[in-house]
Amino acid sequence: MADALVAFREALGRCSFALARNQKVSLKNTLQRLADAVLPDEQADVYGAGPLINDFEQQLAQMLGKEAALFLPSGTMAQCLAMKIYCQDALNHRIGLHPTSHLLLHEQQAYQALYGLEAAPIGPRDAVPSLGDMQAAHQASPLAALLLELPMREIGGQLPPWDALVAQCQWATEQGIRLHLDGARLWQCPAAYGRSLSEIAGLFDSVYVSFYKDLGGIAGAVLAGDRRFINEARIWLRRAGGNLYSLAPYVVAAREGLGEHLGQMPKRLAHARWLAEQFNALEGFSTWPLVPHTNMFRMRIDCEPHLFMEKACHWMAEHDMALVTAPYRVDEHALWCEITLGSAFEALPQARWQEALEDFHRQVME
Amino acid sequence: MADALVAFREALGRCSFALARNQKVSLKNTLQRLADAVLPDEQADVYGAGPLINDFEQQLAQMLGKEAALFLPSGTMAQCLAMKIYCQDALNHRIGLHPTSHLLLHEQQAYQALYGLEAAPIGPRDAVPSLGDMQAAHQASPLAALLLELPMREIGGQLPPWDALVAQCQWATEQGIRLHLDGARLWQCPAAYGRSLSEIAGLFDSVYVSFYKDLGGIAGAVLAGDRRFINEARIWLRRAGGNLYSLAPYVVAAREGLGEHLGQMPKRLAHARWLAEQFNALEGFSTWPLVPHTNMFRMRIDCEPHLFMEKACHWMAEHDMALVTAPYRVDEHALWCEITLGSAFEALPQARWQEALEDFHRQVME
Repeated sequence: MADALVAFREALGRCSFALARNQKVSLKNTLQRLADAVLPDEQADVYGAGPLINDFEQQLAQMLGKEAALFLPSGTMAQCLAMKIYCQDALNHRIGLHPTSHLLLHEQQAYQALYGLEAAPIGPRDAVPSLGDMQAAHQASPLAALLLELPMREIGGQLPPWDALVAQCQWATEQGIRLHLDGARLWQCPAAYGRSLSEIAGLFDSVYVSFYKDLGGIAGAVLAGDRRFINEARIWLRRAGGNLYSLAPYVVAAREGLGEHLGQMPKRLAHARWLAEQFNALEGFSTWPLVPHTNMFRMRIDCEPHLFMEKACHWMAEHDMALVTAPYRVDEHALWCEITLGSAFEALPQARWQEALEDFHRQVME
Repeated sequence: MADALVAFREALGRCSFALARNQKVSLKNTLQRLADAVLPDEQADVYGAGPLINDFEQQLAQMLGKEAALFLPSGTMAQCLAMKIYCQDALNHRIGLHPTSHLLLHEQQAYQALYGLEAAPIGPRDAVPSLGDMQAAHQASPLAALLLELPMREIGGQLPPWDALVAQCQWATEQGIRLHLDGARLWQCPAAYGRSLSEIAGLFDSVYVSFYKDLGGIAGAVLAGDRRFINEARIWLRRAGGNLYSLAPYVVAAREGLGEHLGQMPKRLAHARWLAEQFNALEGFSTWPLVPHTNMFRMRIDCEPHLFMEKACHWMAEHDMALVTAPYRVDEHALWCEITLGSAFEALPQARWQEALEDFHRQVME
């Protein structure tokens, strides 16, 4: 299976057109775009100081409705240090978060091994958490902070209903639990909720956003919150080794990405819903959720995976189009993949994608 | 004094020619150089994987005589996680390091607050540590690891004599103390010791090197050691939030910087020695050490600082040359600054610098 997967991933990577994600840009062109985007008199930050980075931080703080913001190399750093600050304030090292949180799945247990915190999983693995889930965890042993992800990547970009979210945040605030928003893909939420970024982030004490996912940056994150919190975060940033001599390439890429992609988010939500409908109309494809909440969804393909990948490789070589993505899970009778709508979809008209999907289904799935 | 210092720093920054450091390159030109340096088919790393970063890591491992290497965003991260690995192995959280170590002065006590380690200062603040200093600390309570910096930045780039260093490392190895080399400016050492990088690093279990100081990179570091150690370091790197989606801009800058600057190091040692001699011949200037051990030294300027800075500002405005650097310490009768020789010095012939120094001394110091 490993070989077949490698071949499948390579075939996906060779396609000029892809249904998911942002359009690929070579490293050389990425760097050229950054060089072009920078003004001749703009200077690189020095250890996080200078107008290039500080103006961008201020722009983000304003956009997210917070007093202050801090640009950091990664979300892992941003969120762990946010949790650490809240826990130190509370003299309580217990944080609540969903079982699929990035902190639990993708950070080698940094929250525990490095930051000395304790995690209370909130709610079932395959659904948005409820107020009851939060209350149960807090009752078992008080929580210092609660980390909620919007949209929830590992469960197909689902969002809790707005009123439920508001009620959860109100309850947490009443309990003195600090609220942090994992907004790695927060950019997708305003269109989904019909609320501004600052209205959504306003429910939380702090928020982290990322620039290399929806926005096509290179790496980097912003953490926003009140002034005291961000001052504390600067100290922890230095401790974590994230106060780099210069973050300028990441800042420039983030700034350009924000300009290029943020305005496209509502359109991409519509694309995601349209595309999920197309998939669900085809035998053997089913999306999760059935109607996407945001610009992303997950997909189950009922098939014999070896045969599917082999036929799909042939089809892709012939058509130069990638209609699925590398699977994150494979079993004997199905494979699962994640689709996030970005600029790549916009390279072709919808009718062309529809036609291709039908042909792909005919050739590969039947 | 604060205003005078700001004005002095600004005047230094405006000069086209500077005696110290590498030549300034604008951010736009830096990014343009990176774009030019990348081959059209080179791809950015994805979370630290890919030939661009892995080939560079291998090149560094070989250069430093180690089995494996890891590119990271910062030295703070590299060194703290190296210490953490050694301390976990030893089930002992005590590390020995010089009182001027970066870990004690510039990292908000990350080793303690984040990594839970305990520091034993080794030796006097203003001199290289001796074997006796190390033995005393180890006898007081056993050390898990010893971190030595070569050259020692905060004491004017001094180095211990080679034989003393060898004896210290032999003793530590016999005691089972793991040895880590803070090689932020290790590039300066081969010319100073008449030994290769790998001979010097070979005395240690692990070594960290930096790319944005002597080598003119943007940020970034490499940690090198045996394979098991580097595998462990990859886990801690993820925990620290340093496993970025892509480090490509830093890798390209490091690769280019290594090619451009490493071969110049012996010449820059000669420049440092020549320059220190010039300074020491002028009344009121004195370097530390008197004869530089490496490409850097510190300088004391006996003067009334306000008057000195005011006159120096005038002189710089007239001559467009910066002959000192921003002071790291000022008192009533003197100021202190650090001089590191880099490419900036090479922009003018030595005779021109000598002439300028004499004129500067006449106009500003008398």
